[in-house]
Amino acid sequence: MDYDVIVIGGGPAGLSAAVYTRRAELKTAIIEKLTFGGIITTTDLIENYLGFPAISGADFGKAIQQHAMKYNPDMIQAEVHAVKPIEGGYAVESDAGSLTTKTVIVASGAAPKKLGIPGENEYFGRGVSTCATCDGPFFAKRDVAVVGGGDSALSEGLYLSRLVNKIYLIHRRDKLRAEPILQKRFSELSNVEYLWNSVVTKIAGEKKVTGITVKNVTTGEEQEINVSAVFIYIGEVPQTSFVDVKKDENGYIMTDENMQTSSPGIFAAGDCRHSLTKQAIISAGEGALAAIAAQMYIEGRLRSKERPEAVNPQRILS
Amino acid sequence: MDYDVIVIGGGPAGLSAAVYTRRAELKTAIIEKLTFGGIITTTDLIENYLGFPAISGADFGKAIQQHAMKYNPDMIQAEVHAVKPIEGGYAVESDAGSLTTKTVIVASGAAPKKLGIPGENEYFGRGVSTCATCDGPFFAKRDVAVVGGGDSALSEGLYLSRLVNKIYLIHRRDKLRAEPILQKRFSELSNVEYLWNSVVTKIAGEKKVTGITVKNVTTGEEQEINVSAVFIYIGEVPQTSFVDVKKDENGYIMTDENMQTSSPGIFAAGDCRHSLTKQAIISAGEGALAAIAAQMYIEGRLRSKERPEAVNPQRILS
Repeated sequence: MDYDVIVIGGGPAGLSAAVYTRRAELKTAIIEKLTFGGIITTTDLIENYLGFPAISGADFGKAIQQHAMKYNPDMIQAEVHAVKPIEGGYAVESDAGSLTTKTVIVASGAAPKKLGIPGENEYFGRGVSTCATCDGPFFAKRDVAVVGGGDSALSEGLYLSRLVNKIYLIHRRDKLRAEPILQKRFSELSNVEYLWNSVVTKIAGEKKVTGITVKNVTTGEEQEINVSAVFIYIGEVPQTSFVDVKKDENGYIMTDENMQTSSPGIFAAGDCRHSLTKQAIISAGEGALAAIAAQMYIEGRLRSKERPEAVNPQRILS
Repeated sequence: MDYDVIVIGGGPAGLSAAVYTRRAELKTAIIEKLTFGGIITTTDLIENYLGFPAISGADFGKAIQQHAMKYNPDMIQAEVHAVKPIEGGYAVESDAGSLTTKTVIVASGAAPKKLGIPGENEYFGRGVSTCATCDGPFFAKRDVAVVGGGDSALSEGLYLSRLVNKIYLIHRRDKLRAEPILQKRFSELSNVEYLWNSVVTKIAGEKKVTGITVKNVTTGEEQEINVSAVFIYIGEVPQTSFVDVKKDENGYIMTDENMQTSSPGIFAAGDCRHSLTKQAIISAGEGALAAIAAQMYIEGRLRSKERPEAVNPQRILS
């Protein structure tokens, strides 16, 4: 085997896992397709990762990358295409070739879906956000837009409603698709203006977001609205297509409480995992737990009574 | 209600929880009986909390306490005696009186049992340790003692065996009580010397640990052994006696994957919780998750399908 552990993904979950596996003297590679540090490096300011009262996403990314590098895992810049079972482990196939390993920790994250409109990338982290819990407090007493009509939009909107002055809820349909209790609670808020059948076509700014252009898809009418932030909740795409393990209906990986997937020796941690919420500190903790579980698996001392049911290949292929 | 959330325990789990509940503008108290920062403040050097490549336990404790204090939770120095259900929440009874709250996050940790011998407290964090994963790498290629014969002693001993020169396994009985697979694997190690029917009676040192005195309880014979570290695994005591929720046979609190206990509105996080392993980064992640779950509970949007079965008071009292 080339490795004891291959970690797929170099964000907080993957880097925390590597710190633990390397400290346990397991031969470890981390494979990352974009930025070591993960998607959180795009956040303007992080205030909720315990120990760092205020740090930029970029500096945080550097700090956690350097922490992992102290233990010399092999850090490989490549995109993973497949994880295939072999005798005694797995072959991880990527742009960097095929590497063999006893265990795999999938920490590949989830990419928020984007609107694909002008200003969105330019002001991401400076008013454009996909995380109210992270960025909401920066916009206390301001006006903000929330885009979307599902559970995430309303759930995060409820959180925002207690902080901001006013929320414009912008949804492309004429009714919400969030679960009823969220809709009921949202309807009781006094500081929400609904823009139905509407899409955001442009985000304007000057260093930071200053406003949006909203188009009514029924009438074709456009209006400009002053907001300090746009929170986008039109879905996420977990980056898990390369691995055949049990997943939920949205592609997030199912695990037991020890981060074990349905395939023995494959673990998952962080935003790619089926869970209540996505936060860097939670991902770092899950990465550490997955690493300790992988180590125990290699040493033959990990119980697997709670592992999710094995994948039925027929069901996946059909 | 006096509070939305009362957090019991001021270590990494409790402080991380408070950061999240305060950022969500929930009225929050943290009650700690000893040191804000938690038991980890007694560790010499922390190298495995992602983002801090090397920090003393004392400095880490200060950093995480200051992070939480930025959000002004009420920080109360007191010992909690009971958590009692009341209409709409709980009354938390402590040396500081009775405080009412909608939700409780139990983050009260676990205290390792100590040997109660000379030198033990004096050299704690400087050779005396209760965490091989934390401190093992400092003793690479050295001789160390492991005290105990249960799962923890052997599990952590297996980890140490790959790092250190030699392990003296000191056990007060003539056979181990760890699970068979751990005993089998431990017996295959070439760098372990067993001292059966033996107890450590003294830890000697000079700034750091230099050796121990071991007494054979059958023959009464004493010998001195040079070691650089003593890892003590004679059990832990979770600090959970004040709360009536479902626990495992050792007193650790059972939760679902969202940190919910068997009592609605009571959550648990960190070392007091039933889990695979105990690590500061994992505790901080669990504290954040418990806080988000508590917030959702207050807002009426937390599902409880996986909550551990409700406690049967008869069973607890009998």
